[in-house]
Amino acid sequence: MASLDDLPLRADLVGRTPYGAPQLDVPVRLNVNENAFPIADVVADDVVAAVREAIAGVHRYPDREFTELREAFAGYLGHGLDASSIWAANGSNEVLQHVLQAFGGPGRTLLSFSPTYSMYPLLAQGVGSAYVAAPRAADHTLDAATVTAAIEEHDPDVVFLCAPNNPTGTAMGLDVVEAACDAARGMVLVDEAYAEFAHDRSQTALSLLGRHERLLVSRTMSKAFAYAGVRVGYLAADPAVIDALRLVRLPYHLSALTQAAALAALRHAPTMLARVDELRAQRDRIVAELGRMGFSPFPSDANFVLFGGVADPHAAFEGMLADGVLVRDVGIPGTLRVTAGTPEETDAFLASVARLAPSPRP
Amino acid sequence: MASLDDLPLRADLVGRTPYGAPQLDVPVRLNVNENAFPIADVVADDVVAAVREAIAGVHRYPDREFTELREAFAGYLGHGLDASSIWAANGSNEVLQHVLQAFGGPGRTLLSFSPTYSMYPLLAQGVGSAYVAAPRAADHTLDAATVTAAIEEHDPDVVFLCAPNNPTGTAMGLDVVEAACDAARGMVLVDEAYAEFAHDRSQTALSLLGRHERLLVSRTMSKAFAYAGVRVGYLAADPAVIDALRLVRLPYHLSALTQAAALAALRHAPTMLARVDELRAQRDRIVAELGRMGFSPFPSDANFVLFGGVADPHAAFEGMLADGVLVRDVGIPGTLRVTAGTPEETDAFLASVARLAPSPRP
Repeated sequence: MASLDDLPLRADLVGRTPYGAPQLDVPVRLNVNENAFPIADVVADDVVAAVREAIAGVHRYPDREFTELREAFAGYLGHGLDASSIWAANGSNEVLQHVLQAFGGPGRTLLSFSPTYSMYPLLAQGVGSAYVAAPRAADHTLDAATVTAAIEEHDPDVVFLCAPNNPTGTAMGLDVVEAACDAARGMVLVDEAYAEFAHDRSQTALSLLGRHERLLVSRTMSKAFAYAGVRVGYLAADPAVIDALRLVRLPYHLSALTQAAALAALRHAPTMLARVDELRAQRDRIVAELGRMGFSPFPSDANFVLFGGVADPHAAFEGMLADGVLVRDVGIPGTLRVTAGTPEETDAFLASVARLAPSPRP
Repeated sequence: MASLDDLPLRADLVGRTPYGAPQLDVPVRLNVNENAFPIADVVADDVVAAVREAIAGVHRYPDREFTELREAFAGYLGHGLDASSIWAANGSNEVLQHVLQAFGGPGRTLLSFSPTYSMYPLLAQGVGSAYVAAPRAADHTLDAATVTAAIEEHDPDVVFLCAPNNPTGTAMGLDVVEAACDAARGMVLVDEAYAEFAHDRSQTALSLLGRHERLLVSRTMSKAFAYAGVRVGYLAADPAVIDALRLVRLPYHLSALTQAAALAALRHAPTMLARVDELRAQRDRIVAELGRMGFSPFPSDANFVLFGGVADPHAAFEGMLADGVLVRDVGIPGTLRVTAGTPEETDAFLASVARLAPSPRP
C-alpha cells in the first residue's frame, strides 16, 4: 500500500486535507445550515411516485438538457424568466464550478469578499484560477464603493457576491450588484443560496437580470427546500451564459432520479417552503437571546447566526458538543456559527451556549 | 439578450459546440451504447423502497464518504478489494474528471490511444491539461511495445487505456497494462466501462491492482447494469489514490438518492446483469451478419460494433434514421457504430443496414 506522498499528486494539492465539516451523529446538529425539518409526507409520496416512473427508463441516459426541470425552475423563480435562462447541477457548488470552468480557468482570477463561503477558493483552485479575497467591513457588510474599488484594483474575470453572505448572514443591497456589474469586465455571480430566509425577500438580484447580460444568480434546493440530500443547485442568467455552461458540463450530469425528484418538489413549492418562516423566527430568536446573554450576534438574513464574544471558540465548540450540540467554528476569531433549528433544537443550543455566556442571565 | 461572442468565455472554448450525440425520439436507438433492457421489476421495487427511505432524511446532507456504497462496490468487484480502495461519482466521466483534477491539471499531460473515447480530450481540456493521442494499429489493437514507446516519447502524467475500447470494441491484453505501469512515472487508468461484455471476463486489470500502486481501474453502472439514467461510475485503486480523489471532489457529490439507488441495484447484481449474455449474443450476431453482408466489422468485446465498408457514413446514417434506426457516426472514415439492442432492435438494424450493404444478400 502506497502513501499519498508516493503519488504524483498535482503540486498545489500537496499537504491539503479534504474539505468538509465533521459528520457526527449527535442529537442536535446545527453546523452545516441544513433545514431542520424533514420534507412533508405529501411531498415525499409524490417524489417517490416520480422516482418510480423514472426508474422504468433508467437503462437510457437522462435528458441531457433537463428541459422540464429548467421550465419548472423558471416558473418558481418568476421575474419573467423562461427555461432558456436556467441552469442546474448537482448542488450549487457544481453550478459554480461550471461557471468557473466557462469563464475562469487557468490564468484567470476569481474575486470575492471575505469572510465568505469557504468553497470559493477551493473551486477556483480546482479549475486553476487565482483567488483574490478582498476584505469586507468589520461588521461584514459590503458596499458599492468597496466592491468597485476591489474590481478596479484586481480586474477579475469572475466576481462572486454571496448574499445573504455565508458564514456571516449579512444582507447586501442591490446597488452593490449594480456597481459590480458596471465596474467589472468579467462575470458577476450573486450566490443567493439563502435568499428565501431574508427579511426582505423582494431584494433579489433576479430583478436585475434583464439589465446585465454578465450577471448570474445562483440558488440551491439544499436550504429552504430542505433538499440537501438530493443535491440540486440552479442558476438564472442570460441565455448566452447558459450556452457557455453547456460547453463545460459533463454530458448527462443530472441523473433521471435527480430530475424527477426536483420536479416533484417544485410542484409542491409552497409546502416545501412552509417551514421557512418557522426557521426565520428561530433565527431571530437566536440573535435576540445571544444578545441578551452578552454575545455579539451579527444581523442575519440566512438560516444561521454568526456570533462574536466567544472567548475560546474551540473550547466552546467542544463544550457544546459534550452537551450533544454541534455548531461550527468557521475560523473567524472569537466567533462561532449556529444553524437555526427546530424550536427544540434551538432550546438545546441556547441552554448549552448560556453556560459559556459573557453575561450569564440571573 | 447577449450572444456567446459578447461574453468573456475562456479562450480555448471559443467556437466549440457542446458534446453529445443527438437525443432523438425514434423507435430503435442504438447510438449511445445503452443497455437495451429496462431493469427488472423486482429490482425496481427495491430501488423505490430504498429511495423512499432515503427521502425521509434528505433535509440533511448525504454521507460524504458514501461508505456503505463503497463497501458494496468492493464486494461486487471481488479481487480482495475493500471499501478503502473504492471511489464513485456521478458517472464514470466524473470519476475520470476527479482523476485528472488530482493527477493532471494545468501544465500536465494526458496520453491515450486513438481512436478512443471522445470524452478524454474534453476532460483534459476541462482541467487545463494537454491531451496527446498516440495512434493504435490499423485494426485498432494496442500492444505493449506501442504503449511503452508512446509513454517514453510523451512522458505523460496520466495514461488512459480504454479496454474494451470505445468506439472500436477492441480487447486489450493485461500485458499492455503491465507495460504501461512499468514505463510510466504517472498514473495509469484502465477504463473498463464495458468489461462485463467481454468474451473473456477474467481478463480485467483489477487482477493487477495489488502489484501497481499507480494503477486505477474504472467501471460504470451505465452499461451492463442498465443504469445509465442513475449516473454512477466507480473506480478501484490503492487507498492512497482514493485519498487524493477526496481532495478534489466537491463535498457531498453523490446524492442520497444516488447512493440508495446504487446500493439497491448492487444487492441485485445477478439480476441486473442477467441480460448481459443476451446482449453479447446480439453483439456477436451483428458482427457475423455484417460480415456476411460484406461490411468489415471489427471484433468487439463491448455491447456495440464498429463496422467499416460504409461508402458514405453520413448518407448511411440518414438512411437508417429514415427507417427509425439511430446509429452513431463516430468520425472514423468509412465506418459507423451500432449498439447491440434487443433481438427485435437488432433485427430492425440488420434489415435497415442490409439495404446499404456492399454485397447485398440474395
